[in-house]
Formats: sequence, structure tokens, C-alpha cells
Amino acid sequence: MLKVDEQWLSDITYQVNCTDTLLKEEGFTRLGFSKEEEKAIQQFTEISTNVGLHTRSDEAGNVIARWEGASPDEAPIAIGSHLDTVKHGGGFDGAAGVICALSAIKTLKDNGFTPSVPIEVICFRSEESSRFGVSTIGSKAMSGRLDMDAIKDIKDEHGTTVQKAVEEVGLTWSDFEKAERSESDLKQFIELHIEQGTRIEKAGASFGIARAIACPVRLSIKLLGKAGHTGTTPMDNRRDALCVAAPLISYVSEEASRRSVTNEYPVVATVSTLTVEPNVMTVIPDTVHLGIDIRSVDDELKRELAEDIKKKMNSLANESNVECQIETLVDDDSVFLDPETLKKVKQVGEGLGYKGFDMESGAGHDIMNMAHKWPTAMLFIPCKDGVSHHPSEYATEGDMVMGAEILAHYLKNEA
Amino acid sequence: MLKVDEQWLSDITYQVNCTDTLLKEEGFTRLGFSKEEEKAIQQFTEISTNVGLHTRSDEAGNVIARWEGASPDEAPIAIGSHLDTVKHGGGFDGAAGVICALSAIKTLKDNGFTPSVPIEVICFRSEESSRFGVSTIGSKAMSGRLDMDAIKDIKDEHGTTVQKAVEEVGLTWSDFEKAERSESDLKQFIELHIEQGTRIEKAGASFGIARAIACPVRLSIKLLGKAGHTGTTPMDNRRDALCVAAPLISYVSEEASRRSVTNEYPVVATVSTLTVEPNVMTVIPDTVHLGIDIRSVDDELKRELAEDIKKKMNSLANESNVECQIETLVDDDSVFLDPETLKKVKQVGEGLGYKGFDMESGAGHDIMNMAHKWPTAMLFIPCKDGVSHHPSEYATEGDMVMGAEILAHYLKNEA
Repeated sequence: MLKVDEQWLSDITYQVNCTDTLLKEEGFTRLGFSKEEEKAIQQFTEISTNVGLHTRSDEAGNVIARWEGASPDEAPIAIGSHLDTVKHGGGFDGAAGVICALSAIKTLKDNGFTPSVPIEVICFRSEESSRFGVSTIGSKAMSGRLDMDAIKDIKDEHGTTVQKAVEEVGLTWSDFEKAERSESDLKQFIELHIEQGTRIEKAGASFGIARAIACPVRLSIKLLGKAGHTGTTPMDNRRDALCVAAPLISYVSEEASRRSVTNEYPVVATVSTLTVEPNVMTVIPDTVHLGIDIRSVDDELKRELAEDIKKKMNSLANESNVECQIETLVDDDSVFLDPETLKKVKQVGEGLGYKGFDMESGAGHDIMNMAHKWPTAMLFIPCKDGVSHHPSEYATEGDMVMGAEILAHYLKNEA
Repeated sequence: MLKVDEQWLSDITYQVNCTDTLLKEEGFTRLGFSKEEEKAIQQFTEISTNVGLHTRSDEAGNVIARWEGASPDEAPIAIGSHLDTVKHGGGFDGAAGVICALSAIKTLKDNGFTPSVPIEVICFRSEESSRFGVSTIGSKAMSGRLDMDAIKDIKDEHGTTVQKAVEEVGLTWSDFEKAERSESDLKQFIELHIEQGTRIEKAGASFGIARAIACPVRLSIKLLGKAGHTGTTPMDNRRDALCVAAPLISYVSEEASRRSVTNEYPVVATVSTLTVEPNVMTVIPDTVHLGIDIRSVDDELKRELAEDIKKKMNSLANESNVECQIETLVDDDSVFLDPETLKKVKQVGEGLGYKGFDMESGAGHDIMNMAHKWPTAMLFIPCKDGVSHHPSEYATEGDMVMGAEILAHYLKNEA
């Protein structure tokens, strides 16, 4: 059995996060194409070089660390994830996948292994949607799924466009699409990620195998009522946009719960954003914006719920004489991963004595782009209390070591 | 009958608002102690001087335009209101009272009238709470109801404290309290204001007489749930702060409606402010702040509702394992005005052929401070669709003329 160097894994966990403390009160903020993401990528490059990998950056800023092995002309097996984070996120979402991948390579090297096909550790750019509202930019570029015109002019909260942000880190926007790789360029892609939930733990298992990635339907709703003085407008003469939004918030949550119980795959739905205007103590809310995120790997179930939410919203708005505008921001098909590859990864994990759990991913990942072109498998390790996108996001050293071990053994079998 | 100079009234309506257009898309923004409020006050001073009044600013920046009349040593009858506005408010909330007061003086002067007691037109400073969350600063100072230490360090959204703002317009903070006037300094105070509602119109009347000012109970509620990924956190494992807030929003509105029907005086209650954190599409809301405004001249009714809202909130939060912090920001007794003075003002109005309507004021006004020290009456004129604190706030020229006429005749009788 291959032994993972736990100290080295621990050291690079800090190094990649450019930190002395993994649980910082303010968490980590490494937005896509930011200086902070750049710094983390520099650390990735340094570690990769130290461990004997040859690194290059592609035209989209993805960094690929390659181990040529015995047959450099063969298509490589790729493993990896991303290093960008949400605002005040943690040091494991994305980073865990990169760290465990590097650690797996180090483990194989320490054991004198030479792969018969090349192995690549890929560090994707800008996976999170926090900065521009667009997720997985790097893996979209690599898999040829990026609509450059559609995202070029999208601005972050400071008014910087995607194009400008990309150029600020030294990339050339017009070359961006050249990051696309052909089907024959890669043999397969494996992504390790923290679970961002507690289903593995609840199942009494140690790791998860995600059979599918639930892609969201996202709705943006604008309610237009009428402002008025809170003290002088009688209750029966109001068009309060917030009062119209309130029952919908309950409906979204209650319906997702109800439909999850009766269905094979669960559906989750959340009113995650809400802003009120003018948001002043003495003025009745005249405008409310809601953002709703609905997910299930059962596309029909999620689309049915989205339609019912729209109907409910329209009916609530009509009853109260409030104008309602609904926009569907996203409606993507869920992505199913490669059953064969999934099975192999699970077998490797269970062969090492860890109990695996077949599940779905409620969150999107770089792998959902890669899966459109190459055989893929997704491996989840638990994270503390299921928390992610938060400063308290944490994966234990034991689980990180397990992740590295599984990857190392998988590569030993397959590469 | 005294004839109001309609053209002059119209002219000074524009002049006081420093504008060519009364219905500007962005409305008027003259926050308390701002340069914009200063400019409006300069216009007030200029008009007052032109019409033969002697103006002075008191230590709190209230401007008092005085007509000495036949007996300068007598206590004056004061009329007036304020010129500051909320953000993007209109040109009538406050301004209507000042304009009609000046117009009443002009009318009396045009008719060769000389009052037997002095008349004062008072333009109070910083009536709206929009800038500092503190209302009626000027009239609080004049009536000796200002807690200077309590407000001194309160900051506006740009970090400017009340003290600094006061000093920026050339006033001396340490002298501020000297604006207080003694009981014998004034005979009575009459305030004309736009209704900010539609009760006058609905009653088929032309003007309103506010017997009482409903002072609010205001609650600030903070709900602390738990963040989590919207895609990976099962519905039955959430502590979504927004889902806990939603039924309360409905409860506040429904209970106020229900209790208004069964009670002599109505109660109004509004969840007027709500912010969600982190307010990101992929994260379950972990923190929600709500601001609730509850008003009735029936203090018992409003306090009962406030208590029931607190109980309901605590119970909703407990059920969902969400932490709940409730703070009572304001809980003031309602203010009842002087029945004798109210009766006289109403009689004058009805004597002129206008139908009066006895009502309450759901909004706070400078008069609620003045009423603690002097006999007071409040006169409402209608405003279009009941809208105020909004760029579309508007009172017709006919209603403005009516207001000036009633004030002029009242002063002719009483002064």
C-alpha cells in the first residue's frame, strides 16, 4: 500500500492557501482572475516544479502540471480542481482537489512509480461564480464550452469586465479560446472535491462517488408594488412588494421539501438573494428582487418545481396588484458522469478499506464541463458539518490523506 | 374674504424648492443639515424678508421669520413646518407648510391687516430621519426635548456625525440647546402638512384636522441561521434565516389589518427594511435583519401588536433553530393635540366652505414636540394619490391655496 506523506500534504495545504492559519475569521477571498488567485496559482506552480512536474499555463490561465512518464505521446489521465474561492470562503473548496492531486503524485514518486501514460494535475481558473456570476470559466474554455461574447462585458461589482480582468492577469482575451483541447488530448479526468454537505457522514460512509452533477434552474424575480408612508397608508390600501414576496419564500422551501420526500432524487430550492427598495424604516417596500436557485439531477423534477414557483409568484402578485417580472437566468441539463470510471474509483477506495457512498452533486464543478468531452469521475471527501463557502469550511487531515491515497492508488492502477 | 395671491404662491413653491420643475424624476434630496437644505432655507429667508418679516436663525438652525404687529411684547402665534426632505422625496412634505404659512402672511399684508400679537413662521431643521435615523431635530431643540449626548455621535452613511454635520452648516454644537424656548415664549403653534394618505379624499372632505400624532414602536430584528451551499444542503438540514423571516412578514401585515377592523383607531404595521446576508445565489441566507414600524394613536393597541410580533418571531425562530435578537428602537407615546385649537382651525376651514375631516396622523411631525409645551393644531391638505417621500409627491395649487386661505383667516381671527 502506498503511504501518503502526511506532513508534506499538510505543508502544501498551508502553502497553496498562502496562510499560517486555515481557519481565519475572514476566511479566504481569491476571486477568479484576481491577484489573490494568482498568488495561490504561483504556489501551485512552485510545488509542482519541486515535485518534478513540468508546468505550463494555457491561454485561459489554467495551469497544467504534467508528469510525462514512460510514454509521453499517450493521452494523459488528468486530475485536479481549482484554487479560486468565493468571498470569505474557505481553504478547501477547490483547493482540496488540487492538494490531494499533488499529494498523490508525490506519493507515487516517493514510491518509485513511473506511469505508463502521462499524468496531469490541472488547476482550473475562476470556477466560482462570485465575481462575475459566471462559473467554471477555465474548464469551459478547456472543454470548448465557453461563449466568449456572452461573458466578455459582464462586470464585477467594481465595474471590471471579464475581458479586462483576464487581461489584468497577463492573458490575451483573443487567444482565450485556444485553451480548448481535443477529445484525443485527454484519456480521462478525475476531480476530488469536498462534499459541501453531510450525506456521506449520514450514510456512515467515508467518501462519496458523485454519479451526476445537478445543474440549476435559476430565477430572477422583480416585484414592483407601490411605496407609501408606513404611518399614513391604511393596511387595505397597500401594494407592499415584500408582503407579496413573503409567501413565495415559504412556498419555495416547503415545496422542495415535500417533493424531495416523494421522489427518488431530492430537489433543493432556495430563495438565496433578496433586496428591498427603498429599504427605509418609514417607507412601504415598493420593489423586491429575489434570486431563486433550484437543483436536482432529476431535470424534470427541477423544471416542474421552477414552473410551479413561477405560477405561484404570478398568482400572488396578481392578487395584490403588484407587477411581477420573472427571468430564467440559467436552465441547464444535469450532467451524468462515466459509470465505468466511477465504478473503478469506488473500487479503489473500498479496496483501501474506506466505505464509499453513491450520491449526486448538488453543486456545480469543473467536471461538468469536462464530462461533455471526456470520461470523468468525481470523488467527494467529507467537510466539517457540511459547511462550505464560509470561513469555517474545513476538511480533516485524515480525510485529505484518504483522498490523496485513493487518487494515488487509482493512478497506479490506470496510468 | 381674504384673497390668496395664487401666482405668488406658485412662484415661491418653485423658489423654496430651488427648481423649475416640481415633478423631477429624481425628486428632491435635501437631507437635514445638508447644503441642499441650506439652499432651501436661504430661499425661505429671502422670501420672508421680501414680504417684510424679520428673520433670525436660532442656535439649532431653525429659522424664525417674525411679524411684530401691534404688540411686539406679546407671545406670538407660530405657524410653519420644515424644508428638509428624504432621499428622492418630493417638494411638498414640509415645504407645503412653509409655503402656505408665507402665503398666509402675504395675504394678510396684501389686505392691510396688522396682527395684535406677533406672528412667526418657523422653518424647522432636519425633520426627516433619513440622514441620521433621528427625526425632528430642530423642533426637539426648540421644545427642549433633545438628548444631545444620545445623538451627537450618530453617523450618516458617509460617516459624518450629527455634531459634525451641524458644525458644517456653521452652527455651534455646544450652543445647540440654547434654541429651547420657554412656555411663555409662544402662544400656540399651527402646522400645515400634506396628508401623506388618502383618508381625506375617501371621506369626501377637503382638509383634515389631526387630533393626534401616532408615534411608532419600531423593532429591529436580527435572525442568525446558518449558511450552506444551496445545492448540497438537504432541505431537512437547513437553518435558513430568510425562511424564518417570511411568515413574520405575513403575520405583521395580516395582524395589523385584522386589528384595524375591530378597533376604533386603526393600527398600521410594516416590515419596511430587510437585508439578507450573504445575499449570494449559491448560499443559504444565514443572517436577516428586519426593521418593523408599528403605529396607532391607540398606544395600547400598538404595544400589544408589537409584543405579539416579538412572541411570534421568537416562536418561529425557535421552531427552526435560528437565533433571534429583537431590539425595540423606539416606543413613544402618541401625542394628542389641543382640542380647542383644533376646533377653531376646523371652524375657520368650514366657514370658508371647505369640508373638514377629523383624523389622526400616522406620520410624525415637528408638531409632536411642540405639543408637549404649547397648544397646537395640525391641518392636513390632500396630496395626490396619498403619495409622499417619493418624486411623484404632489399637492395641487387649489389645495395649497385652500391651506393658505385657512391659515390666513385663522390668523386674522386669532392674532
